Amino acid sequence: MSKIAILGFGTVGSGTVEVFYKNKAKAEKSTGGELEIKYILDLRDFPESPYTDKFIKDFEVIVNDPEVTVVAELIGGNTFAYDFVKRSLEAGKSVVTSNKELVATKGAELLKIAKEKNVNFFFEASVGGGIPIIRPLQLCLMSDEIISVAGILNGTTNYILTKMFKEGAEYKDVLAKAQELGYAERNPEADVSGDDSCRKICILASLVFGKHVYPEDVYTAGIKSITKEDAEYAENWGGVIKLIASTRKVNQRTEIIVSPFFVPDESQLSGVDDVYNAILVKSEAAGEVVFYGKGAGKYPSASAVLADILNAVKAGGNKNLIWEEEHPTDYIIDYKEQKHKFYLRSVRTDSIRIEKIFGHVETLTRSNMFEKEFAFITEEISFGELEEKISELNIINIIPVFDLN
Amino acid sequence: MSKIAILGFGTVGSGTVEVFYKNKAKAEKSTGGELEIKYILDLRDFPESPYTDKFIKDFEVIVNDPEVTVVAELIGGNTFAYDFVKRSLEAGKSVVTSNKELVATKGAELLKIAKEKNVNFFFEASVGGGIPIIRPLQLCLMSDEIISVAGILNGTTNYILTKMFKEGAEYKDVLAKAQELGYAERNPEADVSGDDSCRKICILASLVFGKHVYPEDVYTAGIKSITKEDAEYAENWGGVIKLIASTRKVNQRTEIIVSPFFVPDESQLSGVDDVYNAILVKSEAAGEVVFYGKGAGKYPSASAVLADILNAVKAGGNKNLIWEEEHPTDYIIDYKEQKHKFYLRSVRTDSIRIEKIFGHVETLTRSNMFEKEFAFITEEISFGELEEKISELNIINIIPVFDLN
Repeated sequence: MSKIAILGFGTVGSGTVEVFYKNKAKAEKSTGGELEIKYILDLRDFPESPYTDKFIKDFEVIVNDPEVTVVAELIGGNTFAYDFVKRSLEAGKSVVTSNKELVATKGAELLKIAKEKNVNFFFEASVGGGIPIIRPLQLCLMSDEIISVAGILNGTTNYILTKMFKEGAEYKDVLAKAQELGYAERNPEADVSGDDSCRKICILASLVFGKHVYPEDVYTAGIKSITKEDAEYAENWGGVIKLIASTRKVNQRTEIIVSPFFVPDESQLSGVDDVYNAILVKSEAAGEVVFYGKGAGKYPSASAVLADILNAVKAGGNKNLIWEEEHPTDYIIDYKEQKHKFYLRSVRTDSIRIEKIFGHVETLTRSNMFEKEFAFITEEISFGELEEKISELNIINIIPVFDLN
Repeated sequence: MSKIAILGFGTVGSGTVEVFYKNKAKAEKSTGGELEIKYILDLRDFPESPYTDKFIKDFEVIVNDPEVTVVAELIGGNTFAYDFVKRSLEAGKSVVTSNKELVATKGAELLKIAKEKNVNFFFEASVGGGIPIIRPLQLCLMSDEIISVAGILNGTTNYILTKMFKEGAEYKDVLAKAQELGYAERNPEADVSGDDSCRKICILASLVFGKHVYPEDVYTAGIKSITKEDAEYAENWGGVIKLIASTRKVNQRTEIIVSPFFVPDESQLSGVDDVYNAILVKSEAAGEVVFYGKGAGKYPSASAVLADILNAVKAGGNKNLIWEEEHPTDYIIDYKEQKHKFYLRSVRTDSIRIEKIFGHVETLTRSNMFEKEFAFITEEISFGELEEKISELNIINIIPVFDLN
C-alpha cells in the first residue's frame, strides 16, 4: 500500500484527486499495489467534499507520517511550497509538483536532496501541462544530444496574440475578453510579462543542458508592447507574432531568451493558436520533434501530476536523470551577443536615413501608415549592436525574427 | 558491465552502433554502469568496418552467451527476426526492435514471454522513428484514458501526397521521383498499399486499448488510386488528402482504419507535409496532444533503438505495461459499420440522380471537369450503406472525410 499526500486543493489539486479516484483501479494495476490518498492539506475548509475525512491543516502530520511515501505539492508559489517540498524530500518522501516557479528557482537544490535521500523529485506538469515533455526529453537525453528547444509555453499570451492577429484587435481589449472567459487571470502580470514562459524555459534549459539556469539569467520581454499595427506588419511580411521561449547550446555555453518573435508561416510554431502550447526540440540524431497540446488546465495538469505520482510509486529509488549543478560563470551568453534579424518600427524617419544606419533592410508596409512611419527587417545583428544603432532613432517597437527552425 | 548484441547491420543497425559509440560516455552515466556491444550479427562481411572483431554469423553464439543481456533486433521482416527475438527472450535476454511487422503480428506472444522471463521487449522505433510515442503513451495510460489515436504514420506516402498536392502532379510521376531521391523503396508496395501504416496503427491500438489487434483485422486502403483530380477537389473543398491510420474506442469495442482521407485545413494533421509523421492522441484528461517529427531515417530510428537499449539495461525486471491479450470475437467493429462523410467522384451522372440516392450532398468543383462528372461529399453514412447506394453508379473514387479532430 502506497500512501499519498496532496498539498493544496485548488484547481490542479482537486483535479488530481478526482482523476486519481477515477483511474484508481488502472493505476493500481500499473503500479502493482494498492494506492491511497491519505491526506489533503489545505488552509480552507471543504465541508461539501466527499473527501472531508482526509483534509488537514497541519503539514507536520504529513512530514512525520512514515506511511506517506509520495507528496504532491500543488500549492504553487515559493513561500510554503519550497519549505514543504524540501522537508518532504529530507524526510525521505518522493515529491511531485506542478510548480514551475519552485522548479525554476530551486530545482538544482531540491534535485540534489532527492538524490541524497534516494527518492524522486518529478515535475512533468510544470511545463506544457498535459503534454508529455519532461520525461520524453529525459529519455532522449540518454541516447541523443539536444541542440535547441523552442516553444510557445504560455497559453494565455498565445490566446491574446492569436486574437489580436485574427481579429485585428488591440492588446488591452483582447486581454479584457480573455479575463472574462477565464483564459487570463485577474492579475495577468506573470503571463503577459513573459515570466511564466521564462520559468518554463529555465526548467527545459536546465534539463537538456544539465546545469541550472535561473530566471534572472534570462533576457525576458513580454507582449504588452505589441500592437495591432505590429501584427499587420507581421502578416504582410508572411508570418505571425508569437511569444517564444527558446534556448540553444553554443559550444559549452547557453543562449536563452523569452520574447515576442516574428515567426515565419513556414515554421512549425506559426500555426499553434489559441491556448495551445508547442515545443520544438532539435537533436543530433532524432532531428526535429514537436510536442503539441493544451499547456494548462485542470485535467491536463492533473493527469501529468498523477503520472508523476505513479512513477514515483513505481520507481524504487532515485530515477532523476537531471541537473544538479549550478552553472559556471560565463555559461549564459549575454543577450547583447545574441544575433537575430530584427523587425523595427520607427517614426519620423525615412528609408534613406535607415539604410545609412543599417545598410540593406527589408521594407514592410501596412494599410493607413502614418506619415514618416517606417517599418523594416534588418540583416542579422546582435542585440548590442542594435541598441547602439537605434540610439538616435524614434523606435516604437523592436521584435526579433525567429530563425531556429 | 552490460553486454549488447546487435542483430543486423543495415541502415538502422549501423546507425545504432554509430550513435552508441558516439554517446557511450553519456549513456554509461545514465545507466550507471559500463556498456559494450559484444556482437554484431550479419550474414554479410564488413571488412572496412571499425568493428570487424565484433561481427559474427551464428546466432547460437549470442543466445548461448550469458554475458549478453540485451539483444537489438534490427533485421526486419518476420523470418529470422521472429525466431531470434523469441529465443532471446526465452533465454532471459531483453529485446529491443524497430521491426513493426514483428510487433504487429507477434506482439502479444512476445510480450507474454518477456513477462514470464521478467525481461523487457521494447519497440519505440517501430512507430514514428525518432518521435517518442510508445513510451509517452505508456505513461499516459497509467493515469488517463485514451479515446483515440490518429496519425500520418508513413513518410513515403506522405511525401508522395504532398508533392501531388503542391505540384499538381500524378501519382506515378511523383513515385518515380521519390524512388530516385531515396524517399521510396524500389519496391514501394508496403508503403503505398497502406500495409506499413496498418502495422503501426495495430501496434498503437494494441498498446492503448490493451488487446492485440492484428493487421488482418484492419480495413486498409492505400494511395494508388488517388489522382491529381482528387487532390484538386480536396483543395477546393478546403483541405488536403492524407493517408491516415486511426483507431478509437467505442464502448468496449475498437474501430480501426487505414485509408486516404479528406482532411480539413483546420485539422492538426493537414499541415504535416513531406516525410514528416504526426500522431494525434485524444485522452479524457490531457485532451489533444500531437507528436510530430521525422518518422523514419537512419539516425532518428537509431536514437530510439538506443534509448530502448538503455532503458532495458536500467529496467531491472519486466517494465512492459502493455497488451498481452488476444482480442475477443467481435472486438473489432466491422468496417461496414464505420460511419464517415465520404467524398465520391462519379461520371455519367448528375446532381438529380445523386440527390435521389443520397439526399443532400455538398457538390465540389474543379477546373476542366469532364462532362457528366460529378464529385460530392455525402452526409455521414456507414461504409456498408455506401456500398449499397453506389452499386448502380459509375464511381471513380471514394475517400472518407476525417472527423476525429
